[in-house]
Amino acid sequence: MELTVYLAGQIHDNWRDEVEKKAKEKNLPLTFVAPQTNHDRSDNIGEDILGKQPGNVYKDDAASDINNFRTQVLMQKSDIVIALFGEKYKQWNTAMDASMAIAMNKPTIIVRPESLIHPLKELSNRANVTVETIDQAMDVLSYIFE
Amino acid sequence: MELTVYLAGQIHDNWRDEVEKKAKEKNLPLTFVAPQTNHDRSDNIGEDILGKQPGNVYKDDAASDINNFRTQVLMQKSDIVIALFGEKYKQWNTAMDASMAIAMNKPTIIVRPESLIHPLKELSNRANVTVETIDQAMDVLSYIFE
Amino acid sequence: MELTVYLAGQIHDNWRDEVEKKAKEKNLPLTFVAPQTNHDRSDNIGEDILGKQPGNVYKDDAASDINNFRTQVLMQKSDIVIALFGEKYKQWNTAMDASMAIAMNKPTIIVRPESLIHPLKELSNRANVTVETIDQAMDVLSYIFE
Amino acid sequence: MELTVYLAGQIHDNWRDEVEKKAKEKNLPLTFVAPQTNHDRSDNIGEDILGKQPGNVYKDDAASDINNFRTQVLMQKSDIVIALFGEKYKQWNTAMDASMAIAMNKPTIIVRPESLIHPLKELSNRANVTVETIDQAMDVLSYIFE
Amino acid sequence: MELTVYLAGQIHDNWRDEVEKKAKEKNLPLTFVAPQTNHDRSDNIGEDILGKQPGNVYKDDAASDINNFRTQVLMQKSDIVIALFGEKYKQWNTAMDASMAIAMNKPTIIVRPESLIHPLKELSNRANVTVETIDQAMDVLSYIFE
Amino acid sequence: MELTVYLAGQIHDNWRDEVEKKAKEKNLPLTFVAPQTNHDRSDNIGEDILGKQPGNVYKDDAASDINNFRTQVLMQKSDIVIALFGEKYKQWNTAMDASMAIAMNKPTIIVRPESLIHPLKELSNRANVTVETIDQAMDVLSYIFE
Amino acid sequence: MELTVYLAGQIHDNWRDEVEKKAKEKNLPLTFVAPQTNHDRSDNIGEDILGKQPGNVYKDDAASDINNFRTQVLMQKSDIVIALFGEKYKQWNTAMDASMAIAMNKPTIIVRPESLIHPLKELSNRANVTVETIDQAMDVLSYIFE
Amino acid sequence: MELTVYLAGQIHDNWRDEVEKKAKEKNLPLTFVAPQTNHDRSDNIGEDILGKQPGNVYKDDAASDINNFRTQVLMQKSDIVIALFGEKYKQWNTAMDASMAIAMNKPTIIVRPESLIHPLKELSNRANVTVETIDQAMDVLSYIFE
Repeated sequence: MELTVYLAGQIHDNWRDEVEKKAKEKNLPLTFVAPQTNHDRSDNIGEDILGKQPGNVYKDDAASDINNFRTQVLMQKSDIVIALFGEKYKQWNTAMDASMAIAMNKPTIIVRPESLIHPLKELSNRANVTVETIDQAMDVLSYIFE
Repeated sequence: MELTVYLAGQIHDNWRDEVEKKAKEKNLPLTFVAPQTNHDRSDNIGEDILGKQPGNVYKDDAASDINNFRTQVLMQKSDIVIALFGEKYKQWNTAMDASMAIAMNKPTIIVRPESLIHPLKELSNRANVTVETIDQAMDVLSYIFE
Repeated sequence: MELTVYLAGQIHDNWRDEVEKKAKEKNLPLTFVAPQTNHDRSDNIGEDILGKQPGNVYKDDAASDINNFRTQVLMQKSDIVIALFGEKYKQWNTAMDASMAIAMNKPTIIVRPESLIHPLKELSNRANVTVETIDQAMDVLSYIFE
Repeated sequence: MELTVYLAGQIHDNWRDEVEKKAKEKNLPLTFVAPQTNHDRSDNIGEDILGKQPGNVYKDDAASDINNFRTQVLMQKSDIVIALFGEKYKQWNTAMDASMAIAMNKPTIIVRPESLIHPLKELSNRANVTVETIDQAMDVLSYIFE
Repeated sequence: MELTVYLAGQIHDNWRDEVEKKAKEKNLPLTFVAPQTNHDRSDNIGEDILGKQPGNVYKDDAASDINNFRTQVLMQKSDIVIALFGEKYKQWNTAMDASMAIAMNKPTIIVRPESLIHPLKELSNRANVTVETIDQAMDVLSYIFE
Repeated sequence: MELTVYLAGQIHDNWRDEVEKKAKEKNLPLTFVAPQTNHDRSDNIGEDILGKQPGNVYKDDAASDINNFRTQVLMQKSDIVIALFGEKYKQWNTAMDASMAIAMNKPTIIVRPESLIHPLKELSNRANVTVETIDQAMDVLSYIFE
Repeated sequence: MELTVYLAGQIHDNWRDEVEKKAKEKNLPLTFVAPQTNHDRSDNIGEDILGKQPGNVYKDDAASDINNFRTQVLMQKSDIVIALFGEKYKQWNTAMDASMAIAMNKPTIIVRPESLIHPLKELSNRANVTVETIDQAMDVLSYIFE
Repeated sequence: MELTVYLAGQIHDNWRDEVEKKAKEKNLPLTFVAPQTNHDRSDNIGEDILGKQPGNVYKDDAASDINNFRTQVLMQKSDIVIALFGEKYKQWNTAMDASMAIAMNKPTIIVRPESLIHPLKELSNRANVTVETIDQAMDVLSYIFE
């Protein structure tokens, strides 16, 4: 049984590569998809495709049209969602992806540092599992195939 | 036609009272519901009902069980969701409520200050309408009844 | 049994008043809702609430945010949709409202002149009933209560 | 990840061939499906299969039974919908396909010339992305696989 | 708790009056709705509203447009469906109404004579309850309020 | 694009073989599934598996448990349903399968002789296409792949 | 805002009366519905309505047809489900009602004694809130209206 | 047609191996998935991944997070559910899995000994088929492919 996993979350380090490498080491039959992880490309995709917009609000809206299109396509094809929250930034995209995944009945794992326990408590409570490290998330994925 | 509006968002000032007062002034046939707005009560509700928990993680999880129960009951009864983001805090509950409302096809208005345009861009893009002030949100509600 | 009817379609004459008057004459227990029928208000509502936009594309997008919000609220509360197509204009809003109503399993009546039989054939085929006059649509509504 | 794309829209030029050719050039793992693009065949399919009908209304209804059957089969198998509007005709089938795709939560791209911005504004607003050229639509599709 | 009951089934005797009378005697808080029970009116409703059709197939199709519209409106408003099969006729409308009710998760009671046990066995098996008399169906309805 | 077609309907002749043979001749990428076509096996399957039942009602109910299980499995895996009605019998299983397929949004073709136009009119009206011969049904299937 | 609460669970003492009395004392705008609480009536309802069955299996199946019909009607009308597990018996009806409520997205509270923590752990984990006493459940209900 | 079967139920003997062996002997195109069948691993998985918890309630809750995640992933991928009840224990997980499968419209077979007829009667009644032995369940699975 092949499963597809959407890796929502911050795009400021290479945690997705780590996930993919560990899945390969464990021989898990998983395919991973994700949002655009090149931050500049993600911010500029609206203007890259549609041309110069009249100000930042419109540039942002054009970019999010296309980022949301991508997320909707990939999340609908996914069987599982992992959402990783880091220490920095507001990360509302991560919160949105995790919340929508839960509302769509996608089994969902949240990865977050101890410092975020309190502000994430209601979202953690709705997700299936909340862990603190990528290794723990990989253990949860492995458990499906035991 | 009576409509019920869920007022998601920060609980650090009395913006909900302002919404209700303005709705009354405009004679809009609206009923408002909301999360627990007493911050301490919201944080302590788990221990208030279930008793002392063995640490903050467990206290938080017990509280969020009950807060999520409340939100699920009230949001399912609502026809419209307004989610207000303030300048401070991570406000992941607000992001979660808005995202779930959108995934449940509840017509949704986001209210946020100009400073939050960029971090909220994907969520704003999925909501029906994004405005900057409560007066603008009230204008959108009024427009239904014109 | 009280029913709510959404009256989609052109806003260039007072056909909705005619529908409401005839329903009253027949004593049908119907409540009617509709899109904004003041054409200028509908086109300007985005700028009226959100302020001046940087060009027509953005003005149109702001208006349609709010018009779509209104339609979504009212159509979700409706038990029946009537969509009236006139001789003029492209009327893509009417086509969109009728199509979405059908996709949402709302029982739907299309009213269209004989001249539009061919271009509307696939949409007519998906609607429950297609008629040519308002009187015929009223007869279909009356038939529910016979 | 293989994706299937439904190409709704006008059937008066070979824009679908252009889409397929460009997808092949970019090596995108996409399969394309579409309505019947032979206009006469599409108009006559009812009589071709069911025999002579007693007038144009009935001929049209018989054809649309079968065209709608085809569309429903193919759109349900699709992951993405692209709807292209041209300058001419009422194109209510295109509007219907795009609207139903959106109501079915299919990620949707609208392609339309600048001249149609105003009449399509509410439908554009509900689609994920609206662009003006096929090249832009291809860029949006490519972005999924970056 | 008021409940609405759709009374599907044959229209060749006044069994619906009997149901309503017995519900009144038992003081059950039930509202009843039903298809058109005037057989000629039901067969002619298409031509009555849309005018003369070019033959019986087209007359039948026009009538069923409007009968199906009526059924869809009333069944969507109902909490319970009772479908009564008599000894005579094919009664495919009754089978269709019962089947669709079950597929829509409407709690469903079938009433049928002993002679129809075998041909109705798969449909009976999917319904919640199958009984042989109206009195038994009334007993099932009463049981809700015990 | 491979499609699966559920062949509902009478099991008194080998029409399903004819469908499969014609699909092969036309090289259509279709897989066919169907109810149990051995009539005795279908009637006895309950007792064959569960043992002797205390009378015909119970024998029938046991058989229909298992027949409905089979139908539910196969219909959920199908993209298209064809329901063929013959001249004889009440064929309520066929009516049930067609009705449930329509309620589940499965694109549906009904095949019925001219003599059944009137009693099947409401069900025909809800199906996508109604034809009189297997060849016509095959033409509709072929049309998907033109 | 009036809410309806389904009280699933054991029928061996009068805990439902206690719930209703406490709701009245707190002036909560709640209506309560429940399964048949007369145990003999619940076991015999099949034979009471349908007559003598040929053995206990058939008597039980007839009773459960009607009990499940009742539960389906009442649970679909409910906004909240409370499921109380006692110390004794297997209580699979309670487990079924709670599980189906959760699968239907009904906000659900489980009440169970400490001794059942381990065997109920997966079901508790899926419910919104698990408590040990009726007073705690009432506190959770009250919290909605604070 | 390949089908996936979720084997819910007790984990105290090797009945799943028996099912798989018999399916292989009959050459049925079935893939089987199941909950964690190592009882200790299932009870300890929360602490195994998340570390020591402050007491049994918390240990159980952590384990059930991960067990429910696994079940949700695998059941969503399954076409059929078989739930086996044994003589011992409360088996509420089995009742929960079967109930949720039924609520999700998964075709469901219950296997239970004669001694459990009465306490399981409502759940049996909602499942498609109830049998007493694994051989009977295999016969039902085989019947799909006859």
